[in-house]
Amino acid sequence: MPVNLQPPVHLLPVPGVRLGVADAAIKHAGRNDLMVVELAAGSRVAGVFTRNAFAAAPVHLCRERLAAGAAVRGLVFNSGNANAATGSGGLEDARRTTAAVAQALGVAADAVLPFSTGVIGQRLPLARMIAAIPAAAADLRADAWLDAARAIMTTDTVPKGASRQVTLSDGSVVAVTGIAKGVGMICPDMGTTLSFIATDARLTAAAVQQCLHTAVAGSFNSITVDGDTSTNDSCVLAATARSGGAEIDTASPDYVAVAAAIAAVCLTLAQAMVRDGEGASKFIAIDVGGGRNLEEVRKVAYSIAHSPLVKTALYAGDANWGRIVMAIGKAGVEALDPATVDVALDDVPLIHHGEPHPGYAEDKGAAVVGRKEFTIHIGLGRGPARTTVWTCDLGHDYVKINAEYRT
Amino acid sequence: MPVNLQPPVHLLPVPGVRLGVADAAIKHAGRNDLMVVELAAGSRVAGVFTRNAFAAAPVHLCRERLAAGAAVRGLVFNSGNANAATGSGGLEDARRTTAAVAQALGVAADAVLPFSTGVIGQRLPLARMIAAIPAAAADLRADAWLDAARAIMTTDTVPKGASRQVTLSDGSVVAVTGIAKGVGMICPDMGTTLSFIATDARLTAAAVQQCLHTAVAGSFNSITVDGDTSTNDSCVLAATARSGGAEIDTASPDYVAVAAAIAAVCLTLAQAMVRDGEGASKFIAIDVGGGRNLEEVRKVAYSIAHSPLVKTALYAGDANWGRIVMAIGKAGVEALDPATVDVALDDVPLIHHGEPHPGYAEDKGAAVVGRKEFTIHIGLGRGPARTTVWTCDLGHDYVKINAEYRT
Repeated sequence: MPVNLQPPVHLLPVPGVRLGVADAAIKHAGRNDLMVVELAAGSRVAGVFTRNAFAAAPVHLCRERLAAGAAVRGLVFNSGNANAATGSGGLEDARRTTAAVAQALGVAADAVLPFSTGVIGQRLPLARMIAAIPAAAADLRADAWLDAARAIMTTDTVPKGASRQVTLSDGSVVAVTGIAKGVGMICPDMGTTLSFIATDARLTAAAVQQCLHTAVAGSFNSITVDGDTSTNDSCVLAATARSGGAEIDTASPDYVAVAAAIAAVCLTLAQAMVRDGEGASKFIAIDVGGGRNLEEVRKVAYSIAHSPLVKTALYAGDANWGRIVMAIGKAGVEALDPATVDVALDDVPLIHHGEPHPGYAEDKGAAVVGRKEFTIHIGLGRGPARTTVWTCDLGHDYVKINAEYRT
Repeated sequence: MPVNLQPPVHLLPVPGVRLGVADAAIKHAGRNDLMVVELAAGSRVAGVFTRNAFAAAPVHLCRERLAAGAAVRGLVFNSGNANAATGSGGLEDARRTTAAVAQALGVAADAVLPFSTGVIGQRLPLARMIAAIPAAAADLRADAWLDAARAIMTTDTVPKGASRQVTLSDGSVVAVTGIAKGVGMICPDMGTTLSFIATDARLTAAAVQQCLHTAVAGSFNSITVDGDTSTNDSCVLAATARSGGAEIDTASPDYVAVAAAIAAVCLTLAQAMVRDGEGASKFIAIDVGGGRNLEEVRKVAYSIAHSPLVKTALYAGDANWGRIVMAIGKAGVEALDPATVDVALDDVPLIHHGEPHPGYAEDKGAAVVGRKEFTIHIGLGRGPARTTVWTCDLGHDYVKINAEYRT
């Protein structure tokens, strides 16, 4: 069961964006597993992708087309097959899928970007996918965001989406809506996170890039379920410019508000992934401050977030601070002095200057880690850098999901 | 149950080394939890210790005394309490413990090194320990290695020890015997690996250092159970020189044979830790070759060995190669080209040049990962560097042990 996560009831349409879904029976029939997005002419699109060296074929094609400056008019997503580790044949499959979508939308062949998630190492069922594309194109609707969120799910237990509205300085209102999937690289052979965010704000190409990178750094790149990086991770932001009004560049007065709304949507989506993380029973923020630089506070935060010993203790509701201290100490921070380190669980001080806080008692820590959501605060006491990452616990259901899925 | 691991039946005495044990009721009474080693005058001792920034008090004292060139004559080990995160009081406790041992052995106060493993963050029960030291000293015997191995166990299910004999070029025979504990940073608040290896070979101080560093790199520093580095890891090698004969320096003809025996003892001990790893049901070697340098082959090997997705699949007997490929790809190897990567499970080729091997079938892979012991072979195809690391799987018992220990 996801931790304090309700599926979205309504997602705001974004002028200039229509979405359609179809059943291509990619893994098995009976659900919509193909999703097509149509973007208005003039949309500006940016993407960030997995750094995994075994990046999937659709990731390669996205990178190639964005680097070439393609005027993106369409996106095609499928669940059930990751089209990863499929070699040159897989790349050709991705090209042919996007060509079929381009034809259905009446746009140039290089104007469509592909996204896949599912089994690694199997070729796409190309004939079935191409046969289903006209149905998805015929289904295009401005209010289909929730259907789209469902179509990209793999083993997510709930669809994930979020919307925000921003009132610009000229009084006009723009929408930001995003959807995502992924709850860890959770199932045998499954790819992981895909997300798509759109706004009708008239952002410049540079502003789209900047918004996406800032938002991703503080959201998708600040979460972890199991520390495993998929071959298919992709996040795309499209700005359709349908709001009209003045162009918004990174120096414009409205930039901060729009960027903040995009970041808020990304954070909600990223946190939803963790709340629905495999076998998760707790949602944990790890807040690390007092570092010399961002690199070292991230090292400490991820060292805790990835430690199976910390995660199993939190699952058990055990305020096992020896493991937290161990994880801080092994993070590889240069010349870290324990005598400046503080640790607290929510508002309960635990370690003060490297030693147990005199007021600490086991029952106080246990009360915090018994909660469904809490924060581990770390102070390194050696500088101004701070960061937060979000993770979940590691329990029996994680092993069950990941060990027993194919058996 | 440990994987293919029998407790040692007999460990060779090492001339110049006597060991004694006592019950100091450190965590609870009823077992020997204090162990004292007496080393002959003239012994040369080297140690390697955890790099965790929260290194325990005994680690600090060991480092201080070895750096000062202390003529080490005694070691004192305790289980049940790690004396970690105990601040200046903990350091004083370690000093007082070693002073009591020095008095019992009739050696200088700085000639004793301390080693602790157990609960983090609690002060040692100093009075009970000091009261038990005379009994341990009175128990000193050359043939007490197995009793010593039992006294340092925490949640190990079997004691760990190994012996080798080496015939030197002058026809004399020297012994190498080692003991170790640790099966992961396995229990709430437990420190982890401790190991002690001794030989009567007449190694120079430089040769002792060199032997230890070489042996540790290929053994204790090439294993992982959960990727978590304890605050107390320590490994000490003592050469008593009781064999007589010519001194053995790193350039001596007998050096290689003695160093090889020491490395073999360390490897057996390190592998025993993995075989007895928390909840382990399989013992897995990860052999990575074809790298440009040692750093990158180690990155790939540990990326696989630490991946919870790979470990849960192996637990399930699932030859889930998509996860292996994912772990190779996320290892952070600069400009890794999937098209040169090969993967095999024992003698079954799985990936050839980045794509599924044409002869691979699911049942062939399943037959290998169904074994209790097997090797994952990775070829990166870009250089001469090679390494092997050893790990175990991750199953329900891991979560049970680590989540439910204190409840």
